[in-house]
Amino acid sequence: MKVKAAIALNAKEPLVIDTVELEGPKAGEVLVEIKATGVCHTDAYTLSGMDPEGLFPTILGHEGAGVVVEVGEGVKSLKVGDHVIPLYVPECRQCDYCLSFKTNLCQAIRITQGQGLMPDGTSRFSLNGKKLHHYMGTSTFANYTVVPEIALAKIRPDAPFDKVCYIGCGVTTGVGAVINTAKVEPGSNVIVFGLGGIGLNVIQACRMVGADMIVGVDINPEKRAIAEKFGMTHFVNPKEVEGDIVPYLVDLTKGGADYSFECIGNTNVMRQALECCHKGWGVSVIIGVAGAGQEISTRPFQLVTGRVWKGSAFDGARGRTDVPKIVDWYMEGKINIDDLITHVMPLEDINKAFDLMHQGESIRSVVTF
Amino acid sequence: MKVKAAIALNAKEPLVIDTVELEGPKAGEVLVEIKATGVCHTDAYTLSGMDPEGLFPTILGHEGAGVVVEVGEGVKSLKVGDHVIPLYVPECRQCDYCLSFKTNLCQAIRITQGQGLMPDGTSRFSLNGKKLHHYMGTSTFANYTVVPEIALAKIRPDAPFDKVCYIGCGVTTGVGAVINTAKVEPGSNVIVFGLGGIGLNVIQACRMVGADMIVGVDINPEKRAIAEKFGMTHFVNPKEVEGDIVPYLVDLTKGGADYSFECIGNTNVMRQALECCHKGWGVSVIIGVAGAGQEISTRPFQLVTGRVWKGSAFDGARGRTDVPKIVDWYMEGKINIDDLITHVMPLEDINKAFDLMHQGESIRSVVTF
Repeated sequence: MKVKAAIALNAKEPLVIDTVELEGPKAGEVLVEIKATGVCHTDAYTLSGMDPEGLFPTILGHEGAGVVVEVGEGVKSLKVGDHVIPLYVPECRQCDYCLSFKTNLCQAIRITQGQGLMPDGTSRFSLNGKKLHHYMGTSTFANYTVVPEIALAKIRPDAPFDKVCYIGCGVTTGVGAVINTAKVEPGSNVIVFGLGGIGLNVIQACRMVGADMIVGVDINPEKRAIAEKFGMTHFVNPKEVEGDIVPYLVDLTKGGADYSFECIGNTNVMRQALECCHKGWGVSVIIGVAGAGQEISTRPFQLVTGRVWKGSAFDGARGRTDVPKIVDWYMEGKINIDDLITHVMPLEDINKAFDLMHQGESIRSVVTF
Repeated sequence: MKVKAAIALNAKEPLVIDTVELEGPKAGEVLVEIKATGVCHTDAYTLSGMDPEGLFPTILGHEGAGVVVEVGEGVKSLKVGDHVIPLYVPECRQCDYCLSFKTNLCQAIRITQGQGLMPDGTSRFSLNGKKLHHYMGTSTFANYTVVPEIALAKIRPDAPFDKVCYIGCGVTTGVGAVINTAKVEPGSNVIVFGLGGIGLNVIQACRMVGADMIVGVDINPEKRAIAEKFGMTHFVNPKEVEGDIVPYLVDLTKGGADYSFECIGNTNVMRQALECCHKGWGVSVIIGVAGAGQEISTRPFQLVTGRVWKGSAFDGARGRTDVPKIVDWYMEGKINIDDLITHVMPLEDINKAFDLMHQGESIRSVVTF
């Protein structure tokens, strides 16, 4: 079938809006009509050419929501008409990783997904007879896409696509880091580095689970108002702190953070986030993605005296199990998404979404079809 | 009273055996007759002058066992004749740390202990009228010592002093890292770096809790026999592995260790220990003490893909609560200490214990009084 898509022909070039060919779903696959998709830093990172695993030409996009229009052979958990969110971390419920109960990093289709292919080792997308790569198994920058059944979360039908698409990545990454990875308890003191979309989602999840002190750290004072709206109780601008920010934050939290979150991708900040944690039990979670080859360091004394350094991808959320719950929380008003979606545009304007992101103008731009 | 002690007058000098003055216990303190004491790497580290917090002159020793001979005012949990193990991490059961239920790092007397003093800010030891520092709050290289009540674990009276003294540090550090810090489960695959005393205690604790594969890594092939006796299932000599040891260990454990333990104090090995852990859930615990100022590094990707980096001191064991249990395990045959105590000597020969340690001849030397 003919599909309208934003194509990334090469790194560092604007996306090209064109019509591409999409084959129907094979066994275990599902054809989804994408109704809305967020534009995320990870798309921009791959498009920048900095991602060593980036493949071109491809159709980017991994934060979508849509409707099932056709199911391939053997698909049992979904039917035509179901509302779904594509998952770049699938949940097969069969592999050693899923069955470990210790991680959400399902490995069922990891290799082919990394190669930009469907699980059978081929692509469904092509342009003028030439293969296009899938991206993160989702390729949501197209009005139709094919996704493996195990990489689709079925959600309630009354949830608005142009809001809950954000749950496909940003919301779940922030909320999941708090609930699944850190397991923040009521009464905790928390420090969040970086008040972009991920940081704001971390903050609202900390509020939801009953944290006491929620400290936001950002060099941009304009982030303060919205962060406070999302639950931040204390704002710290490192530019306004004399000397080292670590002892300042330890003092502010009366001994250090019970939990800290790095939501930027800066390895120096990752160290600060660890070292501002409370001796004896503070847990620091890395969410931000650092540049290729960059390293984090600290003195082992920081760990030997009881701090824990961890991180996680799609922050511990098992997509098919947890994403529908987060959709419910949004519909129940426990999670605010509306204020995070600052721009909505048609696919034709998708390059604007990247510009807005690079200029720091948007929290999240959403493309609707 | 007059007490026989091994005095560290200055860094880098042999201990001097002499008679020192010991004042009786003040309020909240207890006079203990030390019956036996281990000689540990931490004593040697301080004596070497490398420990930036080392204070001289002092009476070293932190791995003792003995009998209560006098209690100070207000001491309620101990009476004359009780058998005890002094604790360099106390357990007051009142401070924020003790009450957090998240750490064993009781802070009740941390500041004075770090200053080489009793909690009232003075020392009980003196030599020819000149103050001697206490060491780690225990100073067990003397046949009598004064210790705060909260830093004494009461143990069963039938346990042999010359064996269970080792529970005051080495045994508990290894066993506690497995049970309290890592929480190793039955069926786990474990990698232990360094087959000295701590490593062997880690290994026997892994066996006790039902680990499947217990891989020992050491460049000294002579460690193999005793490590196998303690439960090691696979031995790896890095000198015999071609190329990088990390992928070798990941292959051996079919995907990486569920838990790894660094028992050396080498920051390069700490990195290997983290990176040989299983993606998604592997936990690496730092036990070894690195040199002052040395740092650990890794790519944040290692954490973002689900590995956890932690460590702990006196590995998570709450001394008054947990040490008596480990003494019971020894008496019940669940923990082997006898094979780890390779040398026993009188106080007069204590400098030999340091020589044996530096030469790698001993696992543990014990001084008896």
